[in-house]
Amino acid sequence: MTKKIAIIGASGYTGGELMRLLICHEGVDIVKATSRNYEGKNITDVHQNLLGFTDLKFANEPLEDMAKETDLMFFALPHSKAMGLVPKVYGKTRIIDLSADYRLKDSDDYDRSYTTHESPSLIDEFVYGLPEYNREKIRGAYNIANPGCFPTASLLALIPLAKENLLTGNVVIDAKTGSSGSGVNPSKVAHHPERACDFRAYKVLGHQHQPEILQELKRYNEGLFDQTFVTHSTPMIRGIFITAYVFPKKEISEEELKDIYEKYYEDEQFVRIVDQARCTVVKNTNFCDLSLHSDGRKLVITAAIDNLIKGASGTAIQNMNLMLEFDENTSLMYPGWYP
Amino acid sequence: MTKKIAIIGASGYTGGELMRLLICHEGVDIVKATSRNYEGKNITDVHQNLLGFTDLKFANEPLEDMAKETDLMFFALPHSKAMGLVPKVYGKTRIIDLSADYRLKDSDDYDRSYTTHESPSLIDEFVYGLPEYNREKIRGAYNIANPGCFPTASLLALIPLAKENLLTGNVVIDAKTGSSGSGVNPSKVAHHPERACDFRAYKVLGHQHQPEILQELKRYNEGLFDQTFVTHSTPMIRGIFITAYVFPKKEISEEELKDIYEKYYEDEQFVRIVDQARCTVVKNTNFCDLSLHSDGRKLVITAAIDNLIKGASGTAIQNMNLMLEFDENTSLMYPGWYP
Amino acid sequence: MTKKIAIIGASGYTGGELMRLLICHEGVDIVKATSRNYEGKNITDVHQNLLGFTDLKFANEPLEDMAKETDLMFFALPHSKAMGLVPKVYGKTRIIDLSADYRLKDSDDYDRSYTTHESPSLIDEFVYGLPEYNREKIRGAYNIANPGCFPTASLLALIPLAKENLLTGNVVIDAKTGSSGSGVNPSKVAHHPERACDFRAYKVLGHQHQPEILQELKRYNEGLFDQTFVTHSTPMIRGIFITAYVFPKKEISEEELKDIYEKYYEDEQFVRIVDQARCTVVKNTNFCDLSLHSDGRKLVITAAIDNLIKGASGTAIQNMNLMLEFDENTSLMYPGWYP
Amino acid sequence: MTKKIAIIGASGYTGGELMRLLICHEGVDIVKATSRNYEGKNITDVHQNLLGFTDLKFANEPLEDMAKETDLMFFALPHSKAMGLVPKVYGKTRIIDLSADYRLKDSDDYDRSYTTHESPSLIDEFVYGLPEYNREKIRGAYNIANPGCFPTASLLALIPLAKENLLTGNVVIDAKTGSSGSGVNPSKVAHHPERACDFRAYKVLGHQHQPEILQELKRYNEGLFDQTFVTHSTPMIRGIFITAYVFPKKEISEEELKDIYEKYYEDEQFVRIVDQARCTVVKNTNFCDLSLHSDGRKLVITAAIDNLIKGASGTAIQNMNLMLEFDENTSLMYPGWYP
Repeated sequence: MTKKIAIIGASGYTGGELMRLLICHEGVDIVKATSRNYEGKNITDVHQNLLGFTDLKFANEPLEDMAKETDLMFFALPHSKAMGLVPKVYGKTRIIDLSADYRLKDSDDYDRSYTTHESPSLIDEFVYGLPEYNREKIRGAYNIANPGCFPTASLLALIPLAKENLLTGNVVIDAKTGSSGSGVNPSKVAHHPERACDFRAYKVLGHQHQPEILQELKRYNEGLFDQTFVTHSTPMIRGIFITAYVFPKKEISEEELKDIYEKYYEDEQFVRIVDQARCTVVKNTNFCDLSLHSDGRKLVITAAIDNLIKGASGTAIQNMNLMLEFDENTSLMYPGWYP
Repeated sequence: MTKKIAIIGASGYTGGELMRLLICHEGVDIVKATSRNYEGKNITDVHQNLLGFTDLKFANEPLEDMAKETDLMFFALPHSKAMGLVPKVYGKTRIIDLSADYRLKDSDDYDRSYTTHESPSLIDEFVYGLPEYNREKIRGAYNIANPGCFPTASLLALIPLAKENLLTGNVVIDAKTGSSGSGVNPSKVAHHPERACDFRAYKVLGHQHQPEILQELKRYNEGLFDQTFVTHSTPMIRGIFITAYVFPKKEISEEELKDIYEKYYEDEQFVRIVDQARCTVVKNTNFCDLSLHSDGRKLVITAAIDNLIKGASGTAIQNMNLMLEFDENTSLMYPGWYP
Repeated sequence: MTKKIAIIGASGYTGGELMRLLICHEGVDIVKATSRNYEGKNITDVHQNLLGFTDLKFANEPLEDMAKETDLMFFALPHSKAMGLVPKVYGKTRIIDLSADYRLKDSDDYDRSYTTHESPSLIDEFVYGLPEYNREKIRGAYNIANPGCFPTASLLALIPLAKENLLTGNVVIDAKTGSSGSGVNPSKVAHHPERACDFRAYKVLGHQHQPEILQELKRYNEGLFDQTFVTHSTPMIRGIFITAYVFPKKEISEEELKDIYEKYYEDEQFVRIVDQARCTVVKNTNFCDLSLHSDGRKLVITAAIDNLIKGASGTAIQNMNLMLEFDENTSLMYPGWYP
Repeated sequence: MTKKIAIIGASGYTGGELMRLLICHEGVDIVKATSRNYEGKNITDVHQNLLGFTDLKFANEPLEDMAKETDLMFFALPHSKAMGLVPKVYGKTRIIDLSADYRLKDSDDYDRSYTTHESPSLIDEFVYGLPEYNREKIRGAYNIANPGCFPTASLLALIPLAKENLLTGNVVIDAKTGSSGSGVNPSKVAHHPERACDFRAYKVLGHQHQPEILQELKRYNEGLFDQTFVTHSTPMIRGIFITAYVFPKKEISEEELKDIYEKYYEDEQFVRIVDQARCTVVKNTNFCDLSLHSDGRKLVITAAIDNLIKGASGTAIQNMNLMLEFDENTSLMYPGWYP
């Protein structure tokens, strides 16, 4: 039977991508999509790409009512907005929160990286929704904290090494993002004249995704290691690229490196080991492409994802598919566009 | 029963898009994809986006043999390359030629715009494959000349006025194209340092698509009119945008204009009348978005398409669907990506 | 002796370009640069490119006081902001207004295109600052209305034909602009994710620069003609490109066309007749490149300028040089950057 | 007295930038600019930006003759082309070679990174032309090996730490380049459709600039350290951005870090310490902007330069100015364009 879905905060880019993916999904119906700013307006006034695919209008009504009539609610709100609303529907429907609000298990981490948490007691009720490593927990879960965009790429790139206990010394993650990561609202950093010919680092050594990555890596790696994380703005629209530098204590050849990753990913549909990961190849798709390099003592792992899909809405749909017992790849398995 | 398809010249951008669309089409199998340069190599070495979706290798074998085992052959070769090969398979299978070789009914036009035609006697055997206006002929056809990218946008923008006999005076078509229109081979005009901050006109008053547009418009408009056509290079990858200026003899209000277009397009799945046609909204899709403007005496019609899909491979699949009796929109009806 | 200059509204892109050009000009000193938002901050906090070249801070003080200590004041404010301030300093110093406020001689035109004019009695005191055609008037003027960006390119492209009385029928100007034309404040239309892969028309048949172009062309052309003007957004930062279509009553060969333009521009330093006008060639410069095409009955003139320089601040400096009796090209005559 | 200059290989991007800078330099005359492909053609047919600034044509004549009539010859040829030609003029004129041919002091390094060296005996006669650290040697030199683009940015970012003997452990340099670094000839990697929405790593752990950086850093740092260098392609035209990660044995606060860099750069005109280094701010200029970050144990240094100017032709002119006893900043000291 068709499942009923609501999207809270549907006017942004991740909300738009959720709608696109749900429209192409035969097992679900979008029954509500909310926006305070666009209440009553056609979804397609904001998401012009959906013209002809939906007649829905933006709603703005009590979440408690929506919870009753839905099987699952997506929260696609800016960080710190979900944690005030989630308690209203908690326990009444399934929840997938795309914000950072329930990702950090130590609420002090959250307080430092974002702001004082409003519902810290619920944090432990949320499963970290990285399907490649938490699949079974997600299947049975009612509440999912969907991973951040940088963490998704970084974790898919590094967990195999963590699981092999090979992360030692200082793991450097040099991350680059496209402009859609800044969201739908115009801003200085995503202003075309400032962005289109620029490259810059931002939030150096202080990005809020750092503790999220570290928290998850620490789960798997027994040894001690430190981590350095710097984010950069590039003039592409979609895409995250990360270059991870690992200096293991023992030599690991490129062949051995590839064997390790094959072991973890040979059955993963959305992770591909390639010679050269490229953002333009994975754009508009749910794939994470990884490329692996070693000269023995220095390992370089690169990862490319679409920040709005594998880095947000695509993984969210993957989680929904697991929770609602659809095939995990429903609506997500299609080749990319090139060029 | 699954239909068998071959693609002649599958290593370029339109060849790649054909493969992507055919892979997503449940009624067909790609049995051969040829390339002289990449013979024996994996398709996915060239079209990295298809990784995981095909194990096919590039072939390079006698076309006559392929004709025997296929229901339909796409020719996705550069202009002037198909006309030497088509005679080898003509009458032995269905043909959709994406090049200009069989579009111009007057072979003198072809000779002037391209080069001396090698198989002019076959020209009349090809139906001009613009589904919105030639649907019934295409259904029964064995040989299709697939329209050019600029003509597709220009004709969908102007045929309604032509059918109403409203084209008079000098119809101006100011056309703009993305860089993928220059093809897969690196060239000065599509060299990133030369293109990314540039805008320029090219082949002013001498573009080879001009006679194709005129030939088709003349079919519908009894009156006399002249046409001016100038093409421009923009720094986007995918997309054609045309701005058409028409000065009709009688006044036509914007309302009347919209009524005319509604009449012709209300049942067309891939033509949408919108307030503002935008390339970024139709990129990666088979849609043609039109917007209509009038101050009474001056009509401005804008059209936006993806040059590789609605302007090439998407329309080719639409034609294939008609010829092989699939639903016309099979594999083509999905929303675009935004942003 | 060094002339003293003030810039009212110096935090925007045209204000920044004025400062850059004045810094490189040996005959002037910037004594004040105002901004209400950035009062007291370093100029280089906003215009990071000027780091090392100025220690000035943004001021915000009575304009009357500034008028007393300056030889010339530039107004680089958004449209409709200058007309309330100019009366305070009118007659007390020289004024170059880069906004539209004193360009339209018929204040009804202004009211229709912008908003109700606040100081219409001053309009006639302003000389339209297009140096190539108003040089002598500018030399003696105290008040200059600096031309708009689209008008500058359109007029340099079309006045030669107007002067030859060759504009007849419907002159079509298809205009394209880079994103810096939207100004320094983030906006939807210049949001990188919305702009970088897009092409669209905007304000079709209703752009506020249309009456300005028509007003100036009418000065020179005795005959009757109509004009159609459509503007488009391209994904480049700097640059305006216009394609003008003219259908003269008598045949004009490409040779004759070039002779006409040579006549008007052979002594003009900043107008170059080239085979192919390109935005990337004129970016960051004060040049207007024109290319000329004819098949006898159809004339196509293309023009490329940098919207912030020749389309705004560069022409403003050219006007200043004339008014203050410097060489007209001081600080403006340098080759562009390529690519 | 005006000095006479020749450029060998003047049709590429660095050749074009050399010409632009020399045209704006009052102390020199370009007497010859060579190109085998464009011999006899106007310089401005290739470098359209120079139209109106030079009437020179491309020459192609014996280098020995040119050596006699010039004070200095620039070699702006692709790597491995200069080393066969330089011996013809060595000792007869001053030489600045912009290629890699005389940078690596150990010719084995050259053989491994490029190809077998043809004139290894001359290598030691060339001074490494990094003015900020070799100024006095350059002043008296007759032969200069101009630094590579990545090395220039990397060395200006790291030599202060090397001089303080603070480079320990594994120094990571994550480098990013614009497309003009690929040169003027169209190539797959700089093909606009492949580049404009992409980000990728290339030559991972095997880039030919790695030994050049290491050679120079080793000059200053007594301690032992290793270095990891990965280069990436971004979709901007001009610009190199490097992010360097250093993990010193003792704690260094951000304040201490800034003090170190102030010490080395307070008198350097072309190195600026800024809060956030950005490629768009330094594009078209000779500046290197550095930003400095530390959390005590982790140091992050970012550097932004224009690859064609500070990373090639600008530094070459700086070297020329020193050798010919002009002010070091002649023709190079102007603010950038923003945006």
